[in-house]
Amino acid sequence: MLIPGLVLKQMYTLGSLENVEDGVRFSLKNRLSNATLTRLSEVRIDGKPVPLDRLTLELNGDRIAASGVSPTSAIAFPLAKVVSVHARGDQLEKGQHEIAIAFETTPFGSLSFKVKDAIAEKVKRTSVPHDKENDHTPEMVRARQDFVAEYTGHKLQHVDKFSFDPATTKGNIENFTGVAQIPIGFAGPIKVNGEHAVGEFIVPLATTEGTLVASYNRGIKVLNLSGGVTCTVVGDSMQRAPVFVFDNARDARDFVKWVDENLGKIREEAEATSSIAKLTYIDRYLSNKLVFLRFNYTTGDAAGQNMVGRATFAACSWILENQDKIRHFYLESNFATDKKSSQINVMRTRGKRVTAEATIPRDVLIQNMRVDPETLNYHAGIANVGAFMSGANNNGCHSPNGITAMFIATGQDVANVSESSAGIVYTEVTPEKDLYISITIPSLIVATYGGGTGLATQRECLELLDCYGKGKVYKLAEIIAGVVLAGEISLASAISSLDWVSSHEQYGRNR
Amino acid sequence: MLIPGLVLKQMYTLGSLENVEDGVRFSLKNRLSNATLTRLSEVRIDGKPVPLDRLTLELNGDRIAASGVSPTSAIAFPLAKVVSVHARGDQLEKGQHEIAIAFETTPFGSLSFKVKDAIAEKVKRTSVPHDKENDHTPEMVRARQDFVAEYTGHKLQHVDKFSFDPATTKGNIENFTGVAQIPIGFAGPIKVNGEHAVGEFIVPLATTEGTLVASYNRGIKVLNLSGGVTCTVVGDSMQRAPVFVFDNARDARDFVKWVDENLGKIREEAEATSSIAKLTYIDRYLSNKLVFLRFNYTTGDAAGQNMVGRATFAACSWILENQDKIRHFYLESNFATDKKSSQINVMRTRGKRVTAEATIPRDVLIQNMRVDPETLNYHAGIANVGAFMSGANNNGCHSPNGITAMFIATGQDVANVSESSAGIVYTEVTPEKDLYISITIPSLIVATYGGGTGLATQRECLELLDCYGKGKVYKLAEIIAGVVLAGEISLASAISSLDWVSSHEQYGRNR
Amino acid sequence: MLIPGLVLKQMYTLGSLENVEDGVRFSLKNRLSNATLTRLSEVRIDGKPVPLDRLTLELNGDRIAASGVSPTSAIAFPLAKVVSVHARGDQLEKGQHEIAIAFETTPFGSLSFKVKDAIAEKVKRTSVPHDKENDHTPEMVRARQDFVAEYTGHKLQHVDKFSFDPATTKGNIENFTGVAQIPIGFAGPIKVNGEHAVGEFIVPLATTEGTLVASYNRGIKVLNLSGGVTCTVVGDSMQRAPVFVFDNARDARDFVKWVDENLGKIREEAEATSSIAKLTYIDRYLSNKLVFLRFNYTTGDAAGQNMVGRATFAACSWILENQDKIRHFYLESNFATDKKSSQINVMRTRGKRVTAEATIPRDVLIQNMRVDPETLNYHAGIANVGAFMSGANNNGCHSPNGITAMFIATGQDVANVSESSAGIVYTEVTPEKDLYISITIPSLIVATYGGGTGLATQRECLELLDCYGKGKVYKLAEIIAGVVLAGEISLASAISSLDWVSSHEQYGRNR
Amino acid sequence: MLIPGLVLKQMYTLGSLENVEDGVRFSLKNRLSNATLTRLSEVRIDGKPVPLDRLTLELNGDRIAASGVSPTSAIAFPLAKVVSVHARGDQLEKGQHEIAIAFETTPFGSLSFKVKDAIAEKVKRTSVPHDKENDHTPEMVRARQDFVAEYTGHKLQHVDKFSFDPATTKGNIENFTGVAQIPIGFAGPIKVNGEHAVGEFIVPLATTEGTLVASYNRGIKVLNLSGGVTCTVVGDSMQRAPVFVFDNARDARDFVKWVDENLGKIREEAEATSSIAKLTYIDRYLSNKLVFLRFNYTTGDAAGQNMVGRATFAACSWILENQDKIRHFYLESNFATDKKSSQINVMRTRGKRVTAEATIPRDVLIQNMRVDPETLNYHAGIANVGAFMSGANNNGCHSPNGITAMFIATGQDVANVSESSAGIVYTEVTPEKDLYISITIPSLIVATYGGGTGLATQRECLELLDCYGKGKVYKLAEIIAGVVLAGEISLASAISSLDWVSSHEQYGRNR
Repeated sequence: MLIPGLVLKQMYTLGSLENVEDGVRFSLKNRLSNATLTRLSEVRIDGKPVPLDRLTLELNGDRIAASGVSPTSAIAFPLAKVVSVHARGDQLEKGQHEIAIAFETTPFGSLSFKVKDAIAEKVKRTSVPHDKENDHTPEMVRARQDFVAEYTGHKLQHVDKFSFDPATTKGNIENFTGVAQIPIGFAGPIKVNGEHAVGEFIVPLATTEGTLVASYNRGIKVLNLSGGVTCTVVGDSMQRAPVFVFDNARDARDFVKWVDENLGKIREEAEATSSIAKLTYIDRYLSNKLVFLRFNYTTGDAAGQNMVGRATFAACSWILENQDKIRHFYLESNFATDKKSSQINVMRTRGKRVTAEATIPRDVLIQNMRVDPETLNYHAGIANVGAFMSGANNNGCHSPNGITAMFIATGQDVANVSESSAGIVYTEVTPEKDLYISITIPSLIVATYGGGTGLATQRECLELLDCYGKGKVYKLAEIIAGVVLAGEISLASAISSLDWVSSHEQYGRNR
Repeated sequence: MLIPGLVLKQMYTLGSLENVEDGVRFSLKNRLSNATLTRLSEVRIDGKPVPLDRLTLELNGDRIAASGVSPTSAIAFPLAKVVSVHARGDQLEKGQHEIAIAFETTPFGSLSFKVKDAIAEKVKRTSVPHDKENDHTPEMVRARQDFVAEYTGHKLQHVDKFSFDPATTKGNIENFTGVAQIPIGFAGPIKVNGEHAVGEFIVPLATTEGTLVASYNRGIKVLNLSGGVTCTVVGDSMQRAPVFVFDNARDARDFVKWVDENLGKIREEAEATSSIAKLTYIDRYLSNKLVFLRFNYTTGDAAGQNMVGRATFAACSWILENQDKIRHFYLESNFATDKKSSQINVMRTRGKRVTAEATIPRDVLIQNMRVDPETLNYHAGIANVGAFMSGANNNGCHSPNGITAMFIATGQDVANVSESSAGIVYTEVTPEKDLYISITIPSLIVATYGGGTGLATQRECLELLDCYGKGKVYKLAEIIAGVVLAGEISLASAISSLDWVSSHEQYGRNR
Repeated sequence: MLIPGLVLKQMYTLGSLENVEDGVRFSLKNRLSNATLTRLSEVRIDGKPVPLDRLTLELNGDRIAASGVSPTSAIAFPLAKVVSVHARGDQLEKGQHEIAIAFETTPFGSLSFKVKDAIAEKVKRTSVPHDKENDHTPEMVRARQDFVAEYTGHKLQHVDKFSFDPATTKGNIENFTGVAQIPIGFAGPIKVNGEHAVGEFIVPLATTEGTLVASYNRGIKVLNLSGGVTCTVVGDSMQRAPVFVFDNARDARDFVKWVDENLGKIREEAEATSSIAKLTYIDRYLSNKLVFLRFNYTTGDAAGQNMVGRATFAACSWILENQDKIRHFYLESNFATDKKSSQINVMRTRGKRVTAEATIPRDVLIQNMRVDPETLNYHAGIANVGAFMSGANNNGCHSPNGITAMFIATGQDVANVSESSAGIVYTEVTPEKDLYISITIPSLIVATYGGGTGLATQRECLELLDCYGKGKVYKLAEIIAGVVLAGEISLASAISSLDWVSSHEQYGRNR
Repeated sequence: MLIPGLVLKQMYTLGSLENVEDGVRFSLKNRLSNATLTRLSEVRIDGKPVPLDRLTLELNGDRIAASGVSPTSAIAFPLAKVVSVHARGDQLEKGQHEIAIAFETTPFGSLSFKVKDAIAEKVKRTSVPHDKENDHTPEMVRARQDFVAEYTGHKLQHVDKFSFDPATTKGNIENFTGVAQIPIGFAGPIKVNGEHAVGEFIVPLATTEGTLVASYNRGIKVLNLSGGVTCTVVGDSMQRAPVFVFDNARDARDFVKWVDENLGKIREEAEATSSIAKLTYIDRYLSNKLVFLRFNYTTGDAAGQNMVGRATFAACSWILENQDKIRHFYLESNFATDKKSSQINVMRTRGKRVTAEATIPRDVLIQNMRVDPETLNYHAGIANVGAFMSGANNNGCHSPNGITAMFIATGQDVANVSESSAGIVYTEVTPEKDLYISITIPSLIVATYGGGTGLATQRECLELLDCYGKGKVYKLAEIIAGVVLAGEISLASAISSLDWVSSHEQYGRNR
């Protein structure tokens, strides 16, 4: 089974040409799929063959003579791994050279490539100290702190104060040097009537914006006086959206049919990469000669962006091997839409889709927020026009305030505030003249496991909510949604009662 | 000069009715404009007049007999202040009661209101310890830490570790209890060719997402090898967008003309509230019988949301006093669009509009990122279709990653990632076959003064960049934009060369 | 099986209260589902019972004594029919009165309603002559022409000239009085390489905009010189999107699950209303306590909006009968999105999704359009930024021009230009330096049967294209798409070569 | 004053190389600005100079020996004109050749260009008969009708019936062959309380969609019973949006400042092209190294797209002559946004921004539409959520139906339904429990002069409304808006009362 040429070219990379002491070195990277290397047939540099006995392969630190690789003495060449090819002999002159290589693999047969590459000039750059093998030691952290002090002339006095072992940040950050200390204030307790979060919770809000904690607290009081906030997760989906380019729209359309027919196998390949990710469905969007496939997964208690990246890559590798009309393929296409606010997220969910709702008795609203349900509802109608005309992704007041504060406190990927900023607020005056108010957050990306959730203060905050670890992610989503609704009630009341500027005045601002 | 009734009703609030030991108390809040109270004419409860000699007024802790207030013995009643009215006599039964009050003011003459309010039941709620007067003392912080431990059964071990005096958080947070410790890794140095940032900077990135620092660092290397990144602030605007409701579209349209004619006075009122905020222009959006005015300001080195709120409120107070066709007024309308991604922000700027650009020599791109300019540019063309169809606010890769990491490190309002997530990437292959790549961030909300910028680690990070304080905000905007472009180059290269999943694999993820 | 009260209230309407010669009349309309009326139990006016022997029912022109209706002498009461209830006795005074009615039906059992209605004042209004029974006769047409002349003082001289029997307009228009004569110019022949349209077609374009026909003709010439235009229908879907309101989000979410489980039955009910409409899938969008179901159908050669309206209503009637948690229901919700440009249409198709594409040899483009592929492609890249920032639904040049001209000529519902205005243009310079250009029209709503397609000139134009009647709709979609691409090439070339204003000059404009 | 090279290349076009009987001919087109040709210095073909005495110039039918052109015998070479250069001698072989030309002009000095062009093969194509000089004669019309009959095998029987002189279509259509006959039904009279339209109007609706006229008539009845509809034009703007490309964002930003400083001169150049177009303001949008200038004009009673195209071209010509940092320039950029629905049009107006509004007394609504204000308003709230989530450009029901029907009847550019489909509906239940309902159409593009308005039936329909000619365009806009609101009331009532499908049923549909 041979891979079509155009795609194949992307599947292995040849490069990193450099002079070494006794000759030349370059590398070959496998981007396709696990393979076994059964023979190195030929290497040419600038058209001139290099004798096999001058070639050595390096993989995972092992060095193997090229002539020693054969079908009976094959070496594993897994996906994403790099083989370094070392050609003893003369060094090359500065500038461009052509490298060609031919080799045999199982199961992909004979393959050959050619590439122009330049001998890289080694430039001595100043850079932040980094140890490829062992970067999270106290010594390396200290070395970087010293470097920062020297480079900037400012000795660190606060950034270098943290309460945990730097080794615990491995996998969460490179060049770890210290911490940002973000103030946490607690709001609540808030009474949540969720399916997963049931009871009262005190809520850690990490923020530097005065009045935020107080404002959420006011809303929480109202919710509690109304019997608590009802929260429901109504959707759950994490995506990766590769794009496939064809010769024409007809091939593109037929490809989509083929995907439908092979969905079982595609799912199998995708799900083989993880015990957790489940492929729920694949949305397809056709335009011109392009097919955007939006793979939708559930990802357990992880946010799952990386998990679904791996799964989708595996599925696409299988697709690429079994389809010969694909002309280009990219794993991302801006249809995911990772780290972006988008209409598709509002419509079709990214992360958790969660709704918080409450009916606020008329008297509770008036006595606590100085506004009646009709006035608040009237303003909401006008604000809808404003959101519609301005092209906003949120017709509410400030849901990202609460979301961001909880994201920072609980170790979420805070950049996902991009997606999570969307919100749909809906209000009604009930027949009893009370206020029904709710918000749906259509793309709340949260985790209780993996990512930053295991770090020291982050895990601690999750544990205070009894939200750390497996089986807790819906609970956390419900609590966040409940807190968000509290903030909506608070600010919507303030705006519609005109209390808003003065509440800022009262608490003062730090300037 | 009398204010029309409908508006007036919003301008003073009557409420907070409660039984006290020797009678009843309620409050009157001035939401209109500074005034002087020259007489309390009458108070009725449930229609029954309360003799004047039983009434006492409380303002700012002073107690004054109602009968003592007269034109010659007037009391100041400033905007946003509350007068408590204390009526000695019987307590009221639980439930609703009608309070009516009539009084005289300068310059607004005789005013009277009536409201139904209920005697609030005092409910004993558990709540986070809070001291209205003195909340940021070590003792109160400790009290809250103890409360959290008791309430949740988890004793804090990390959140309670911080390196600064809690008093410094006053104005930045309520109920301060501890900190989130967010790991900081340094990237760079990055060479920035700005108008304000000129030179090389090491960049603090606060994140919990593995590969982020490494990815930005790769892009920085490419930028440096290309002579650095050129950064330019091309726009600067902070908004507040009140809405005015009229009887009909004709009055609404005529109001806009009136605003034009009175722009000088409106600007004067707005700018009187601050030595910094300058009103640049007022955009107007008419729909139905509504007028949305979008006040645009420059705000110096502050982000300025509160500053422009105060300025706009003052301007609107003057408008309300001088216009008699306004039927409703709200200071916010979802046209600002604060904490929201929106088309209007992309088009018309919110915060700083800043562009970073570079021309990457072909060889630099190929040798470092394993992709040629044509391939990266081709993918960008396809990703544009993806962004267009999915309704995304960003046709780039992941600008919010860098923005968020720098926002957390430098004390920005991180919830503004909502707006700041927008980005417009544009690429070209130049006639010389190099890659021109640029990103415009149309709504980057940053400050180097005020807000969270003065906190311990935050200020320290700003100082490392020489970006703390006055006259530095454009410099910071330029540095952030440069870093963002580095990240775009890095991820765009990875995607278009298919390197992307594997880079995640290589650095490993924390699960 | 009883229908829940809240819905029920919408399901029957009581009203049209009027005084008649010998008493009072009002009507009862069945909006629920076919029923049989088995007894009229009671009628009260202003609380006072009306003796049964004074009541007569009128249905379809038949008059039946109320006392004559019984289980053994039941009368059919189909959906959408009105029963007039005639109560002999006194007339009512002007103003509001309360009518109450109780009756029994199969299968819905005992039902009773109460409503306040006012005696309508009969106002004599001037109106365009109309005959409810026989409105499309030459006499009625003449009567209206006379009325127009008299009312406006302008005798018709052109509008009254048409070449067909007015009776043929029945079902297409009410108050038919004459015609708009829209000039038709022919372009082409255009060579189409479709799956359904194969060969060369001359194209009727109905327009009043000078240069339009000439511009399309220029593009057609280029396409023909490039071997013709390849057209492919890649999607087909017509929607109706009802909304269901629940008590809360949890009920809403559970309802969606229930819909999934009952999809077979729902499909059966929907498809029973038509031999043509096929329900392909139901998209669901949850927000707050609302569920928007977007029913997707294929509708043969009809545009199908009415067909899918009926089918969806039938399906929803069944849903309403079998679900007791629905609190409100509306057949439309702005999620269809009929007669609206929308992101959902761009993404998920409305009508036909059709792509036209061609590779224009470099020389053909340069010689005919005076622009090279690189320049046109470069401008397309810039125009993409323009479309992205301005929030346009079309990144191309002027696809609605050709679409509208063909819609008018061929009897389409021209108001659907709203949806059909969307377009996604994608260009590439091929490795051979030719121009690949394509457009996808994601929501092209066309018919070759039903609607206006059978009218005189409209049918004639369809027949010239061999596109009238059954089995032709994809062919027509392909031809339109091909023509649209011709226009894109023509105007894109003109803009990118700067020829654009001058082409308007040359052909002159009619002023 | 010399124009920069890059722009210059676009400013003249060399091409149309062809063999003629006695040699070769090619053409030179002036796309820059009016000039005078003072000398033809040199012509080379394939590098070989052509003796001057073999060269003849043709301009506007005049033939001038090349040697006869000199500073004292100069010839005018206006913008958009073509000079044919005729070189006597040998013919050229098929394939590519290089032509070079050098010449002198006032005021642009010496200019020279080189281009590769191919001898075009003359291909005999079948095409619709066309006479460049005299195309709108009865004979040419007949010739085309015959051609259509022969080409398709269908003799025209209806399309060829029209009531006017074909010469009147000159400037409105090319290849005029006949007409589409679109049925017109009259609705009304509708009572309009405009500033320009005052009184009652019967309304011509050209449509093929059954129930449309009846539905609008129902709404008109309700409006009339409510005292008529109040209509107000609140904005008026027609745009052209050129784009300028610079080397970098800094030059782009500085250019905008320069434009501000030179606004007076730019306005002068723009307004010199027309006695009607007035430049109101220039909006500027910066992204990357691009500047989009959106020129806003008023255009009297014309729709004005061509008028503003000419004016903007003139202004940009002046800009290009006086700015040396512009690297590319295109007159269109997708920021206009012509023939496109867009957020910018909704926000900032295109054509007329017009609002229609009415307060419908409760009884009128209930008695005529069988729905109460609360129910209709409730549905509007839900439909707002639908429009917001689906990304629709219109939160109303079906405004494009009425707009399209009136556009066809009155000779508007129907393709502008693309823009005109946008609408913002706002409803309220008043304190008196009546219904306030209004719609703002933010981009209604209408004319009462120019374009198709002077054609036979089109002008007649305008005259029936007393809307033909100068000073009438606001009147027409008001009437259209009033009709549109009637349709909104009608369909909104039907949907919210569930009457909607049945109204389609009752009038029947034509299949």
